[in-house]
Amino acid sequence: MTSESAANLLVTPEELAGESLRVEGDRYRHLFRARRLARDERLRIVDGEGGARWAEVAALDRRHAELRLLAAAPANDPARRVDLVVAAPRPERAAWLVEKATELGVYAVRFVSSERAVRGVDGKTLERLRRIAVAALEQCGGARLPELSGPHALGELPRLPTAGAWYLLDPMASETLPAGGDEAAAVLVGPEGGWSDQEVTMLAAAGASRVRLGERVLRVETAAIAAAALLLAS
Amino acid sequence: MTSESAANLLVTPEELAGESLRVEGDRYRHLFRARRLARDERLRIVDGEGGARWAEVAALDRRHAELRLLAAAPANDPARRVDLVVAAPRPERAAWLVEKATELGVYAVRFVSSERAVRGVDGKTLERLRRIAVAALEQCGGARLPELSGPHALGELPRLPTAGAWYLLDPMASETLPAGGDEAAAVLVGPEGGWSDQEVTMLAAAGASRVRLGERVLRVETAAIAAAALLLAS
Repeated sequence: MTSESAANLLVTPEELAGESLRVEGDRYRHLFRARRLARDERLRIVDGEGGARWAEVAALDRRHAELRLLAAAPANDPARRVDLVVAAPRPERAAWLVEKATELGVYAVRFVSSERAVRGVDGKTLERLRRIAVAALEQCGGARLPELSGPHALGELPRLPTAGAWYLLDPMASETLPAGGDEAAAVLVGPEGGWSDQEVTMLAAAGASRVRLGERVLRVETAAIAAAALLLAS
Repeated sequence: MTSESAANLLVTPEELAGESLRVEGDRYRHLFRARRLARDERLRIVDGEGGARWAEVAALDRRHAELRLLAAAPANDPARRVDLVVAAPRPERAAWLVEKATELGVYAVRFVSSERAVRGVDGKTLERLRRIAVAALEQCGGARLPELSGPHALGELPRLPTAGAWYLLDPMASETLPAGGDEAAAVLVGPEGGWSDQEVTMLAAAGASRVRLGERVLRVETAAIAAAALLLAS
């Protein structure tokens, strides 16, 4: 069995370090109702921080199961760190963005407020987005959950935990976003109305390079996912 | 006013060729309720086939408007032809795929049936997807609507109207999908359960190159949009 077809289960780092794991409740339903695992079948358990091990179903009844934890499994996480710093879109668009960013292996999605952004993001929305990220991680076979945070003020950006290149997406820029690379990178995606001139000036002064993705006006989540796909290409 | 901020209206090629255009009904609501255009304001009209002109609001009352058609406007369409040939995902995922493919400037989205695909795509779904493409085109400022078609049998593929390179996405391939380029390209995206061995053999025999997008199992629409972003990068 390869990691491509194995069921994945998110556990805590403590659970990942153990020798066995008891499964019930939501986790039981995920593995034995939705994924229909059987006794002796193999699965992959991941800790959301990049750790992954194989496991097998050692015992199974109608409400519980016991997993035996085995050797380390491939993490399937990209080597490159790519952060998306985006003007918060509407909730259903934010949900898509987080699902797709998780699948592609983005390191963090941070929501910023900007002069022309329609809305921020509240704690309840972030909680929902975290559940979406967990489901996406279990589906795609990665081992690391993206950090989700916000709302941040643009002025906080220089203090956000990241390193490497900062790219500011702007349809009027003359340079294009370069594909591939190893250096950590963060992409700033403004609202559909664009950043204000003041914001562009501030972000450029803080070291962000203005780059474009074609000539069109992309929605926030489209631009963010297209940029992540480019930067994470090997 | 640049094309980045102009309202866009999809018209027919015959209308695009005229000197003026009367606007009422849905088009009126799009321009004068949703986008709140005023008299003398400029907009961009596109024909869905790559033609674009500037126009201005010459007359306006509470239910109709008269547009005066002006000089040619930038089309904002990518030079490269990229087709997506995808195993039909669930309707809401197909809708997202078509919206994003339209924004990025994909030439065609064709839905294929495959051994492990959950569903095809019916005429009603295609009609809904066309409306989504129109809204996305007007939002992003492109001039050409993608062709939407299906369901196709995999055996039809060699006869589908395309040219250039065929890429078959496969997480187990050793080569990666190359970013950028000019040659027309089509990307085959299988269902989440993967193509069957028989299908891979048939598609490879028909000339498709097996390539991967990272190590993860991406959902159909994620893989399709990531591939389109890479191939359309300049």
